[in-house]
Amino acid sequence: MRALADPVRRLDARGESPESVAARLRVPGGFLTPEVRNVAREIVERVRELGDAAVREYTERFDGLKLDVLRVPEKEIEDAYREMEPEVEEAFGVAIENVRRFSRREMPKGFEIRRGGEILGQRVRPIRRAGIYAPGGHGAYPSSLIMSAVPALVAGVDEVCVCASPGRDGGVNRSVLGVARMLGLDEVYAIGGAQAVAAMAHGTESVPAVEKVFGPGNDFVTAAKLEVFGTVGIDAPQGPSDVVVIADASAFPERVALDLMAQAEHLSGASAILLTPSENLIDAVAPLLSGEPAKLVTLVRTEDLRQAAAVSNAYAPEHAHVISEDHELVVNDLRAVGMLGVGDFSPIALSDYAAGPSHVLPTGGTAAWASPRSVNDFLVRTNYMQLDADALDALAPHVSRLARLEGFENHARSVEVRARKAEGKGPDV
Amino acid sequence: MRALADPVRRLDARGESPESVAARLRVPGGFLTPEVRNVAREIVERVRELGDAAVREYTERFDGLKLDVLRVPEKEIEDAYREMEPEVEEAFGVAIENVRRFSRREMPKGFEIRRGGEILGQRVRPIRRAGIYAPGGHGAYPSSLIMSAVPALVAGVDEVCVCASPGRDGGVNRSVLGVARMLGLDEVYAIGGAQAVAAMAHGTESVPAVEKVFGPGNDFVTAAKLEVFGTVGIDAPQGPSDVVVIADASAFPERVALDLMAQAEHLSGASAILLTPSENLIDAVAPLLSGEPAKLVTLVRTEDLRQAAAVSNAYAPEHAHVISEDHELVVNDLRAVGMLGVGDFSPIALSDYAAGPSHVLPTGGTAAWASPRSVNDFLVRTNYMQLDADALDALAPHVSRLARLEGFENHARSVEVRARKAEGKGPDV
Repeated sequence: MRALADPVRRLDARGESPESVAARLRVPGGFLTPEVRNVAREIVERVRELGDAAVREYTERFDGLKLDVLRVPEKEIEDAYREMEPEVEEAFGVAIENVRRFSRREMPKGFEIRRGGEILGQRVRPIRRAGIYAPGGHGAYPSSLIMSAVPALVAGVDEVCVCASPGRDGGVNRSVLGVARMLGLDEVYAIGGAQAVAAMAHGTESVPAVEKVFGPGNDFVTAAKLEVFGTVGIDAPQGPSDVVVIADASAFPERVALDLMAQAEHLSGASAILLTPSENLIDAVAPLLSGEPAKLVTLVRTEDLRQAAAVSNAYAPEHAHVISEDHELVVNDLRAVGMLGVGDFSPIALSDYAAGPSHVLPTGGTAAWASPRSVNDFLVRTNYMQLDADALDALAPHVSRLARLEGFENHARSVEVRARKAEGKGPDV
Repeated sequence: MRALADPVRRLDARGESPESVAARLRVPGGFLTPEVRNVAREIVERVRELGDAAVREYTERFDGLKLDVLRVPEKEIEDAYREMEPEVEEAFGVAIENVRRFSRREMPKGFEIRRGGEILGQRVRPIRRAGIYAPGGHGAYPSSLIMSAVPALVAGVDEVCVCASPGRDGGVNRSVLGVARMLGLDEVYAIGGAQAVAAMAHGTESVPAVEKVFGPGNDFVTAAKLEVFGTVGIDAPQGPSDVVVIADASAFPERVALDLMAQAEHLSGASAILLTPSENLIDAVAPLLSGEPAKLVTLVRTEDLRQAAAVSNAYAPEHAHVISEDHELVVNDLRAVGMLGVGDFSPIALSDYAAGPSHVLPTGGTAAWASPRSVNDFLVRTNYMQLDADALDALAPHVSRLARLEGFENHARSVEVRARKAEGKGPDV
């Protein structure tokens, strides 16, 4: 009976290439549909043309709310903070402090290289104004606001505004508002979905335009970000959450089961994958999985831990959790992954809430080329050069030659007019 | 007569806000049209479905060429290198070496934070496979290949492939091939435009898919990158080139004129702007500008250098060149700019070709939020944590509380099952 009722998908990866296993694990459907992109494009265009009026219309249609004032009054933010339970405030405080500490360590520095009469350098500065979308969905996620906003604040962004979906009861989630107050953010708008992205990117009567828009959010939010990219900066697209647990026979089945169930309870397309050479572990974990989340779990039998790591690299998970007596070996083999928990005492839920690294992570295989949310997302680099006459003289003939090769006579002359001894010097202007 | 024939646009910015002046300087039209995006979307879709067949069809339609083999044979690359003139090879060699030196200095490092029984850290690794588009347009730009590929190689990317438009004579520009050889790149495809982006992103029979696609390119290339973003990574969109020259009465008019003409000779929407408080300088520069490029130049009279810097910050130029007896003051005021040349001996043409910082830069005002091409574009970060039992115990109550607040019971339990003294511990599974 149990075997028949067992809802959990099992795969045998032995003898199969990592790429092939990863392809079977990937949820089909892939990235945003054309329909989602078209809807998002229309919303973005209408908000750009009509401003607040279009935002109000979409808020009424999608959130079932008539809102006169889109910005959340300061008093409401203050009240939400005051009614926060002390233990909850303490927990958010720990999370904020740990994310801040990690973000500070991440801060890159500018540099300067001096050689003879030449100075080359790089400055790093924060963007001036950032817009953060705090996702709602089937719950509200104040933790996500921490994970995006703290890196922005540590980076030194002057102005951080927040858009959050208003609930049917008429307002933004009270915990989200309380966290905003803890972070010193007083510019919060009760706007959700693609219309929030559009308002932040193009600006409306209520929402001054930002320079860069940050997620995560649902598919419409992601599609809207792609629409406005170029006009403003955006972060990489985010999709449904996933985890790979790589474990050997030393792992406790009930703990592994909870790790998988924790990931799978995000629902909406989430994936939780166990990669293990231990058939016993699979047999022990399977009956501990239940309900809707269990349908999102896949238990994969691998040849050994090395193949498990290879499959993980091909899959490029958002999170990986390694539970093994020889975790060094696995960890050294792992490449494409956003957040990595090492050892039994490092379940991913810790970094989801409070360990320090951001929980805004590359999903859907994008960990191959995208990075976790960080201060770097809120910083911009400027390169500079300062040469003296000798340094210019040394470079001039090479630059002239290449400029003329590419057909840019004025480039060549703009250098030669300053050089004292360039070859092939053109006539004076 | 001269006044009437003077084709150069002049603006008086005195008494006007920086934002208002910047808006007047911005070339109207803005970002990609819907038509361009639709064409790019169709090309991307067809290449994704039909692979090489679609690439060949577009190459015949847009480049007027029937190509059987899309990959450039190694012998052709070798031949192109052998026929390079020694002085040109030397000049490219200097450029490569300087870009390499700057890129090496840019390399970020991972880190580890230890506190009690807790280790938090970050690893940095290169992406595995990158695709670089080497733009053609009304010329061919081997220098652009250097400016994108050297940071990739310094970052340690395993595989770098290059797509370059084939000319009507049937092949990729010989200098581009020669430079590819100097860089050790032997995977070059004679594919241009949106079809090149599509082939690299989705893969075809000839072109294995990459993880991230890099420009710059024309509007169709940029639009295609936006279509494939999410499936693969892309760099920020690039548009027409621009420069702001900030100069006072100490500048030599003929040099300033050449700086402006150098920028404007890129044509196709380029902008070259002089910001100066010196009416004399404007009067002296104007008659030195001529031809098509002169139509892309704007000479702006500002109140003082401070207003000039403020206008530049609102405009967010790709390049800024400061020529002033007090350049420190101006440079300290400047914020949003991709590449900054300081002083008369630092014309932008130097960094366009050989100084060291990449010439692939944020354009069209995107310097407010986007950075120059760098090793960072080819690197990915992974965060990790490794806690012992004590460290887990310390975090557990906070994590449980926040997880339950957000409705994630299994997140809470995945932590509590490992904790020795967590409050509110749930029942064992």
